[in-house]
Amino acid sequence: MSLIVQKYGGTSVGNPERILNVARRVIATQDAGHKVVVVVSAMSGVTDSLIKLAKDVSAAPTEREMDVLLATGEQTTIALTAMAINNLGRKAISLTGAQAGIITDGVHTKAKIANLTPRKLNAYLNDGYICIVAGFQGETTDGRITTLGRGGSDLTAIAIASAVKADLCQIFTDVDGVYTCDPRVVKTARKIDAISYDEMLEMASSGSKVMQSRSVEFASKFGVVFEVRSSFNNNPGTIVKAETADMENVVIRGVSLEKNQAKITVRAVPDRPGSAAAIFNAIAAQNIIIDMIVQSASAGTSNDISFTMSRDEFPKAKAALEKVVKEIGAGGLETHEGIAKLSIIGVGMRSHGGVAAKMFEALSRGGINIEMISTSEIKTAVIIDEAKLTEAANLVHEAFGLGVV
Amino acid sequence: MSLIVQKYGGTSVGNPERILNVARRVIATQDAGHKVVVVVSAMSGVTDSLIKLAKDVSAAPTEREMDVLLATGEQTTIALTAMAINNLGRKAISLTGAQAGIITDGVHTKAKIANLTPRKLNAYLNDGYICIVAGFQGETTDGRITTLGRGGSDLTAIAIASAVKADLCQIFTDVDGVYTCDPRVVKTARKIDAISYDEMLEMASSGSKVMQSRSVEFASKFGVVFEVRSSFNNNPGTIVKAETADMENVVIRGVSLEKNQAKITVRAVPDRPGSAAAIFNAIAAQNIIIDMIVQSASAGTSNDISFTMSRDEFPKAKAALEKVVKEIGAGGLETHEGIAKLSIIGVGMRSHGGVAAKMFEALSRGGINIEMISTSEIKTAVIIDEAKLTEAANLVHEAFGLGVV
Repeated sequence: MSLIVQKYGGTSVGNPERILNVARRVIATQDAGHKVVVVVSAMSGVTDSLIKLAKDVSAAPTEREMDVLLATGEQTTIALTAMAINNLGRKAISLTGAQAGIITDGVHTKAKIANLTPRKLNAYLNDGYICIVAGFQGETTDGRITTLGRGGSDLTAIAIASAVKADLCQIFTDVDGVYTCDPRVVKTARKIDAISYDEMLEMASSGSKVMQSRSVEFASKFGVVFEVRSSFNNNPGTIVKAETADMENVVIRGVSLEKNQAKITVRAVPDRPGSAAAIFNAIAAQNIIIDMIVQSASAGTSNDISFTMSRDEFPKAKAALEKVVKEIGAGGLETHEGIAKLSIIGVGMRSHGGVAAKMFEALSRGGINIEMISTSEIKTAVIIDEAKLTEAANLVHEAFGLGVV
Repeated sequence: MSLIVQKYGGTSVGNPERILNVARRVIATQDAGHKVVVVVSAMSGVTDSLIKLAKDVSAAPTEREMDVLLATGEQTTIALTAMAINNLGRKAISLTGAQAGIITDGVHTKAKIANLTPRKLNAYLNDGYICIVAGFQGETTDGRITTLGRGGSDLTAIAIASAVKADLCQIFTDVDGVYTCDPRVVKTARKIDAISYDEMLEMASSGSKVMQSRSVEFASKFGVVFEVRSSFNNNPGTIVKAETADMENVVIRGVSLEKNQAKITVRAVPDRPGSAAAIFNAIAAQNIIIDMIVQSASAGTSNDISFTMSRDEFPKAKAALEKVVKEIGAGGLETHEGIAKLSIIGVGMRSHGGVAAKMFEALSRGGINIEMISTSEIKTAVIIDEAKLTEAANLVHEAFGLGVV
């Protein structure tokens, strides 16, 4: 008998019929001879409704109270899921984050899990119960309700899998797994059978929306093997695990795309200490997250500094920088709002040469200009014109032979 | 500085605008120099929606899970109310039933408060916080979420008022207080300024829907003075408190009406041990609550036994009794579905004679037939034809001079 943790996201528990569907899946897992812990999110739409209510009573809702409010979303789902399983004749019991022993720090709306004591969980599992745990939430040692922020339910599932020493953690979602590229953009994109934590992390941070980085980081840190798969069919998903020797045989695992980027270039930044700091301090003061940064030699004693950010944050960044340009005596701002990022990712890059060259060649075949380049050990990313993204993705995907054979 | 507990029901917190209205009332109370604890119900409609969801996933939802589900209703309201008060610039903090120290027994969906430790409440009050507590809920000593059943939020408010030794407990609702009679039936009905616990209890158990009996019983037991008043205006309400000497000066405090009653008479029940028991055991086996019972001598060695119940339960009762009539050899069943109960209530009955006579005289002026009579120390109730209820109520109300002067 093995122990499986299953996590179902908001779409998978989006209405009573879907909750009954989840109940049947969980029971099938138990029937296959496993102990089961189920982690559920709020029903899709519920969190947004709660946020709207909060905005209706307060322009800036207190974060402590926001957590009390949002935690009701998952609490509703655990009760309904346990009822649905009970209704089908099995023993199930619901546990809020606090009841499941999830202790967090006190940073409301984005708390970190500090400790997880699975005493109750283990007791119920040993009594033959299917345990239904509220994702996304926990409590502080002094009894305040906290939430874990975006992707928090995945984190709950992985932390529980680690604490109860589960044999497998299954993240059920509305996609079949992790793909070699976004199938809406590249028709020949293929589901990946297995991917390493590091590759998954690079995918997450370069536009792939399947999972938040910190859940993957947590799994990597504690060696939790997990599977991303669909709750709407029985297809096997993508296994995410520590790197194995044979993983490097594949040059590139996948291509990540990120739209809605913007680029700002500060021209002719005087080449003296403090100039770059002035620029990035101004950006940081607005809480804007910068992605790529490139500094290139300009004429004489100055440099051009370029960086990219989400297009949403572009107006704020531009406004902040217009002051700085004057203060430091730079040449001016040049902006480009219509850009996107394309990244190729794979541990095979370490042992295969010519990967970047192959990518650039594929792009050049389409006459696609590369505006910026950034690399890590297992990733090469380029900034291109957003209008060319679909063409670029298909060219690169094909160049590395990633498509369906 | 005094300490006030205020309870706002579902209608009073029914939408964001009303929650902001409650926030302003609470702040006005603080501005008047008081410490304030606020107890809130689920927003009106929320509990029904949750029950519907439960029914959609299970024909017979587990009671433990029902409590987990329903408790989210009040948790939503405490967060929103605290946010609204914070938004208006005051320190407010939300507490679930468990966080407020409300420990109950383990009888899910109708738990009893076993203990209340106001340690956290007192600490927050001393720190200058307005405390917003979820009504209707608590937790068991082993950490299960429980709910207190119908009227549970009133009970929470009164229990907290007792535990924190509040100077006053205000139950805000959608009516102005307790009336001498239902103002929709008797136009001249008047709000009662003060009423004793015993009178309030008799009102509650004879059709007045203002409060559930057990909240009043709890207040009576622990001597909690409370006021029932409207959250939609600033009119003073009705004070409910221990009986004072001058209360007996008023003969009748009010007239309670209860519609939708039904009567069954079992004719010619053989006058031997066990006959009556057979009848009432059959009723009890169906979980039907009986109100009045009258046994009257019939011819020879048998009696007629009549009793009343809610009309909803009449079909079940009739079906159960048809068997019993044959078993015990009674004469048959006689039924009347179109009846209602009218009760006059007042501690003045103890010291004033002729009260019942005055009531019967008033009814006879309207040609209204009395089908059954039941009395207690401070109440006289009659069963009459439901079609005559409005006329009867006005006649009796006027006979005792209860109307607006």
